[in-house]
Amino acid sequence: MSDIANSLAASIRAIHDYPKPGIIFRDITTLLGNAKAFRQAVDELVRPYQSLSVDQVAGIEARGFILGGAMAHQLSSGFVPIRKKGKLPHQTVRMAYSLEYGTDEMEMHVDAVKPGDKVILCDDLIATGGTAEGAVKLLRQLGADVVSACFVIDLPELGGRRKLEALGVEVRTLVAFEGH
Amino acid sequence: MSDIANSLAASIRAIHDYPKPGIIFRDITTLLGNAKAFRQAVDELVRPYQSLSVDQVAGIEARGFILGGAMAHQLSSGFVPIRKKGKLPHQTVRMAYSLEYGTDEMEMHVDAVKPGDKVILCDDLIATGGTAEGAVKLLRQLGADVVSACFVIDLPELGGRRKLEALGVEVRTLVAFEGH
Repeated sequence: MSDIANSLAASIRAIHDYPKPGIIFRDITTLLGNAKAFRQAVDELVRPYQSLSVDQVAGIEARGFILGGAMAHQLSSGFVPIRKKGKLPHQTVRMAYSLEYGTDEMEMHVDAVKPGDKVILCDDLIATGGTAEGAVKLLRQLGADVVSACFVIDLPELGGRRKLEALGVEVRTLVAFEGH
Repeated sequence: MSDIANSLAASIRAIHDYPKPGIIFRDITTLLGNAKAFRQAVDELVRPYQSLSVDQVAGIEARGFILGGAMAHQLSSGFVPIRKKGKLPHQTVRMAYSLEYGTDEMEMHVDAVKPGDKVILCDDLIATGGTAEGAVKLLRQLGADVVSACFVIDLPELGGRRKLEALGVEVRTLVAFEGH
């Protein structure tokens, strides 16, 4: 990894055996709380998109809101929240997505994007890619052009990047951790 | 209100009789999705703090994450998530807060702020101020200096501003709506 990637990786806390034995949880709150690392992460996330005239950054609830809000402001784009079901007050569209056990549903307002809008999807981490895949499908259902998806952390062994690339979505990540 | 306040107010959707009859819900997603309004809102929120050397912006889950993430990046500060209980992976401190019916609890990591840190609290809306009051107490419990609290929307009839000011916290808001 590059110097920046190494320095960002060092700012992320590893929590062993969370949420269950054998799992290393990558806790991004220590990166967020480190002013230099947070600034660097957002700047690196937006850099490839600065010349693209992005219409909307779509962030996945909840940690994707923190990074996506900063990205949207920096890119002078709008921000679209993709939320857990039952949280949005206006008419919504829904999409089921896979979790480790079973499925859940995510929602977006029906008027959150316009057909043809250039959208960047954002979340803190990509693991199996089930949530991000659902988000891409939901955005496309409303006619959005999902030009790229970006994440601070990639867990490459879990295959999320391949899942999004198979949908024709470019994937950008800043830091990769082996194991999960 | 100023021209900017009027233009921001116009970008916020009113949803009548939500979540129950007689209530007008102020839906900020239309402001977030409006690139110009979102940029203006974040710029107005950060303006008074730019010379303050803010250490952390603390955002309240979930909409406070969107605005607070953008503010922290713009101020080159860290970002601290104040979350609903059970969401944070490391050791936490908890604080009960009042809801319309009953109470709930919010959490922060024990190492999210250091004693003496200058912190700005951020959320999308202040109504009765119960959540913001809990957040201020939680931040102070860890020794933070909560220099100000900011919100896009104020519902002044519900008294939240007075509640925070009674705690000695400066309150800044961009848009006020009568009724609730």
